[in-house]
Amino acid sequence: MAVRIGLIGLGMIGRDHLQRFQKVIVNAKVTAVCDINSTVANSIAQDTNAKPYTNATDLVNSPDVDAIFICSIGEVHKDQILASIAVGKPVFCEKPLTPTASEAQEIINAETQHGSRLLQLGFMRRFDPGYLALKEQIDSRALGETLLMHMAHRNPSMPGHFTQEKLINDSATHEIDIIRFLLDEDIVSVRIDKPRKQTPRVPGGFHDPLIVIFETSSGVRVDDELFVNCNYGYDIRCEVIGENNTAELNEQALISTRTANGAGARIAQSCMERFAVAYGREVQNFVDNVFNRRPMSGPSSWDGYVVAVVCDAGLRSLEDGQKHDVVLPERPGLYR
Amino acid sequence: MAVRIGLIGLGMIGRDHLQRFQKVIVNAKVTAVCDINSTVANSIAQDTNAKPYTNATDLVNSPDVDAIFICSIGEVHKDQILASIAVGKPVFCEKPLTPTASEAQEIINAETQHGSRLLQLGFMRRFDPGYLALKEQIDSRALGETLLMHMAHRNPSMPGHFTQEKLINDSATHEIDIIRFLLDEDIVSVRIDKPRKQTPRVPGGFHDPLIVIFETSSGVRVDDELFVNCNYGYDIRCEVIGENNTAELNEQALISTRTANGAGARIAQSCMERFAVAYGREVQNFVDNVFNRRPMSGPSSWDGYVVAVVCDAGLRSLEDGQKHDVVLPERPGLYR
Amino acid sequence: MAVRIGLIGLGMIGRDHLQRFQKVIVNAKVTAVCDINSTVANSIAQDTNAKPYTNATDLVNSPDVDAIFICSIGEVHKDQILASIAVGKPVFCEKPLTPTASEAQEIINAETQHGSRLLQLGFMRRFDPGYLALKEQIDSRALGETLLMHMAHRNPSMPGHFTQEKLINDSATHEIDIIRFLLDEDIVSVRIDKPRKQTPRVPGGFHDPLIVIFETSSGVRVDDELFVNCNYGYDIRCEVIGENNTAELNEQALISTRTANGAGARIAQSCMERFAVAYGREVQNFVDNVFNRRPMSGPSSWDGYVVAVVCDAGLRSLEDGQKHDVVLPERPGLYR
Amino acid sequence: MAVRIGLIGLGMIGRDHLQRFQKVIVNAKVTAVCDINSTVANSIAQDTNAKPYTNATDLVNSPDVDAIFICSIGEVHKDQILASIAVGKPVFCEKPLTPTASEAQEIINAETQHGSRLLQLGFMRRFDPGYLALKEQIDSRALGETLLMHMAHRNPSMPGHFTQEKLINDSATHEIDIIRFLLDEDIVSVRIDKPRKQTPRVPGGFHDPLIVIFETSSGVRVDDELFVNCNYGYDIRCEVIGENNTAELNEQALISTRTANGAGARIAQSCMERFAVAYGREVQNFVDNVFNRRPMSGPSSWDGYVVAVVCDAGLRSLEDGQKHDVVLPERPGLYR
Repeated sequence: MAVRIGLIGLGMIGRDHLQRFQKVIVNAKVTAVCDINSTVANSIAQDTNAKPYTNATDLVNSPDVDAIFICSIGEVHKDQILASIAVGKPVFCEKPLTPTASEAQEIINAETQHGSRLLQLGFMRRFDPGYLALKEQIDSRALGETLLMHMAHRNPSMPGHFTQEKLINDSATHEIDIIRFLLDEDIVSVRIDKPRKQTPRVPGGFHDPLIVIFETSSGVRVDDELFVNCNYGYDIRCEVIGENNTAELNEQALISTRTANGAGARIAQSCMERFAVAYGREVQNFVDNVFNRRPMSGPSSWDGYVVAVVCDAGLRSLEDGQKHDVVLPERPGLYR
Repeated sequence: MAVRIGLIGLGMIGRDHLQRFQKVIVNAKVTAVCDINSTVANSIAQDTNAKPYTNATDLVNSPDVDAIFICSIGEVHKDQILASIAVGKPVFCEKPLTPTASEAQEIINAETQHGSRLLQLGFMRRFDPGYLALKEQIDSRALGETLLMHMAHRNPSMPGHFTQEKLINDSATHEIDIIRFLLDEDIVSVRIDKPRKQTPRVPGGFHDPLIVIFETSSGVRVDDELFVNCNYGYDIRCEVIGENNTAELNEQALISTRTANGAGARIAQSCMERFAVAYGREVQNFVDNVFNRRPMSGPSSWDGYVVAVVCDAGLRSLEDGQKHDVVLPERPGLYR
Repeated sequence: MAVRIGLIGLGMIGRDHLQRFQKVIVNAKVTAVCDINSTVANSIAQDTNAKPYTNATDLVNSPDVDAIFICSIGEVHKDQILASIAVGKPVFCEKPLTPTASEAQEIINAETQHGSRLLQLGFMRRFDPGYLALKEQIDSRALGETLLMHMAHRNPSMPGHFTQEKLINDSATHEIDIIRFLLDEDIVSVRIDKPRKQTPRVPGGFHDPLIVIFETSSGVRVDDELFVNCNYGYDIRCEVIGENNTAELNEQALISTRTANGAGARIAQSCMERFAVAYGREVQNFVDNVFNRRPMSGPSSWDGYVVAVVCDAGLRSLEDGQKHDVVLPERPGLYR
Repeated sequence: MAVRIGLIGLGMIGRDHLQRFQKVIVNAKVTAVCDINSTVANSIAQDTNAKPYTNATDLVNSPDVDAIFICSIGEVHKDQILASIAVGKPVFCEKPLTPTASEAQEIINAETQHGSRLLQLGFMRRFDPGYLALKEQIDSRALGETLLMHMAHRNPSMPGHFTQEKLINDSATHEIDIIRFLLDEDIVSVRIDKPRKQTPRVPGGFHDPLIVIFETSSGVRVDDELFVNCNYGYDIRCEVIGENNTAELNEQALISTRTANGAGARIAQSCMERFAVAYGREVQNFVDNVFNRRPMSGPSSWDGYVVAVVCDAGLRSLEDGQKHDVVLPERPGLYR
């Protein structure tokens, strides 16, 4: 029997996942949808033969829902996740896990008390074939020990509601998680540099681009260029420099053209386009675990907590430009 | 309710599709499997909770099967397809449709009599994102009128049972179909040239590589290098030259490396690897049509027939090295 | 003492070489210039402190000229070369050597009688670092035996005076020579195919593009796309397919850009741009031989003769579309 | 008349330039050579028909020498340059100008007193076609205002005598100069980070790689990865990120291959290989100015002085890891 999904939050990413469930995900169907806006909830419920909810807890508790899929705003994640854990239902949560590390800690406590992993966090890059190919190079020591990584995270333009903090809490979180994933070690310090600022399309108080410099426990240094108004495209770069060799993500344009303007190829314009395969695979991974009654795998509550702690250090560096250490408690046994 | 698939033929491609149904296809499940080897049929049936068959007609007629998926050898395609059409069940058939044009004609007759398209033929390249991007360039006239195409179809090595004829009937069929698809016009002549022959890894009587030259009704000239013992990889090239601009398929390596051997990137080693996305999409297209009770779309019996006629001309040219015209009957209304 | 060059023919290529002598060529200076248009000759002579001539023979015979550099039209090459040989002066001649094979034969006879090579022919591609790198791959057998080559020769637009024959006699000559150079063997047949024709920017009677198919003595098959109105750039392609591996010329753009139009890189717009290094090296090779009183090296009168014979076969195929054999006399000892 | 060059210092780079004068430089010849090792000086003098010297001042003062070309070690540059300026002879000096800023100041004083530029400094990258193409993008504002640059400077292995300081004083000097050249502004601060250290092929006390972070007067932030034991090749990267678009140096491999190891292309193995064209053009620029009796152009004594001041700040940061400001005196009128 297909897994019955209750989808909470019907904004852009929620609708994108809804389509994914309809078109590319095996062994699952969305049977309940929830949005605080009842018009939205009813309209989408009708289109999809799902049951509409405006109260997330009601959806979580519904007997017609096997697993919860959270696409709401970060501020309400904690309550929705705790409600899911309370009834022992598997839950997928879009990143960030929670806006603060202390809220994430509450989730870890609840999940630990439950005794097995119930949550997969939406860091889709861990499912991107390109990053996985890089990880294979690193894990096999084909490059020698990793010494450095250069990363860039560029968006053509930022959403209207974007804030300075979100450059860390929202954009950089992807690199924070993928650095830990690629290297299998923790980040021990963060420092943020402010280069010359983009002015034409950015409000006065906002500083874009930023350079975030991470150090990991073995001393690997990673620089991450965050540039969310780069104009030209959604461009994700990652170069890994080992003692002997290097490896980097390739462009993935399908075709190249030759015109009077020169040789050319398309650049992705959004994360949906760039990471379409990764989104599909992360959701299928969640469904497969539920379908086969296995504990959740992939990015965990602990990963969400650690990212929140690293972000806190980053936000302090955003203030004073200094290097800030990242101090983590011992990793609970559930997440080893 | 998921579409119940009866899968006929459990060789390499049959098993590959079986895995696809289990892992990436939405709204379908394989409920019956058939192989002339009963041990194979029983073993796979047991692993997949499907019902085993050794007689294809029995599977076709089973009330537990909504749609037929044919992965058997070409020689038995006709009977299996006609049986499916006789009971009005949708059928997916791996290419080639049939070994001869006259058999294909019988299928066209039966499907025409049925009155709507029941068959999708397994030319997966029509679902490859790269070819679709090329087609968009052609259809939009972004290149100007198309004048030429250069193609190559390279395999690292050929299967043990490969014959000279299969270089046309098996390998070239992909290009024959995709040329017609890309240009929306028919091929009017074929000529085969024999370059210097690969010797180290090829039996004496076998000539590899070949160059096949096609002309289409508007005069577009296409050269297709067939080289099934190229050693280094599975490499598919397509460059479209228009009056003003050109477009070509890109390499799709995920990462690039830099080592003491130079800059490097992986080359695909098989059609399964190169066309993984296309295979998934062609099968999903078939399932979506069955699920939604729509007539079949994608490559048709007519396309299979036309490819067989073009291959016949190719085989004659393989004999005498001359250009042979392709003469087609009028396209039946069902396939317009 | 610098070699004193007498430059005959002050059209586009003549002036281009004149600049080359002034800026990049070592151990030579142009001391005499000749053009049938006396105004041109006088004006350029004045700018360069050279002596002006309108009669080529006078320039050839001048005691102030050590070596002759011919950039005049092909129709007058024979007389100018024979005059140079008569006085034993080294001569560089832009390709084609002569419009007909029989004229080329006269030059061979004169040079043979002289007893050592006095002439270098202007097939600059032999000095292009890219082609030389391909030749290294071929000669070292790094690819295995060569089986096939795919070539393209594209110009953005053709000169006003271009004729159908010049697509062979002028454009294809470069590939004819470089095929022989790369493979170290002769071409034994030629066939020309006419694809769909470019119409927007080409006069009615002119057929562009053409595909020329060459076979060499060992059976290597080479297709050469000639497209002199391709609109987008000057684009030279060469892919060599061996039994085990392939090698091809790379794009040589200096930088790549990323803009809202996508990823991009410049395409060369003329042979002067694409082959700037090759032109410099061929001329320096000529000067070095003269300076060091060595016999001439590089493309020879014999190479010019052979290209003319291959072109004759090509012109016959342009008429009837059939394959025409290339029949060559024995290679004279001087050119072995 | 060709410029008569006196070449001082016959080590690796001196001999490389000597060959350049013989093979690719127009309007110059080396008439005198000097080395403290008389055997070397005599032997090379004999091979080249030049006059040997062991005392640099004697060579400088020789009436047979029009211009001085210094390839000796940095410690003796100052005296050799001052001697040249004293007799008013143009001088090309390999970088660095001098080991210390104060020595460079003496040269500036002497040249200023002389009243016109007599010196060109050997920062050859200013003559590299790739960097010049980047500069064109920057100067034309095609990218929008420049915000960031990412650079890397990788050598396969370091010379035996290399010291930690040379990573700044020798390697980073190239980037320091080219940043100023590309952006037409000065560097105002330097900071050095120490990533995880390469261990297999590096002596204990030596830290490689380093990351140097520069800020310019307008706030452009540049990170420069210095990695002189990277193993795989000589790899120079430069990406310029503007408000709207980016541009970066391309790989320049002549050909690409396809083998069982994948798609591949050569990576340069030394600065001589990577910057062959740039070396030729910088020397020709020097010779052209001397030949035409023009003041020197290209990188100046002032540029050498500024680089030394920036290096001093870098060396302080190498000690303490802090950001150090670069304080420059007013630029003398001669160098504006």
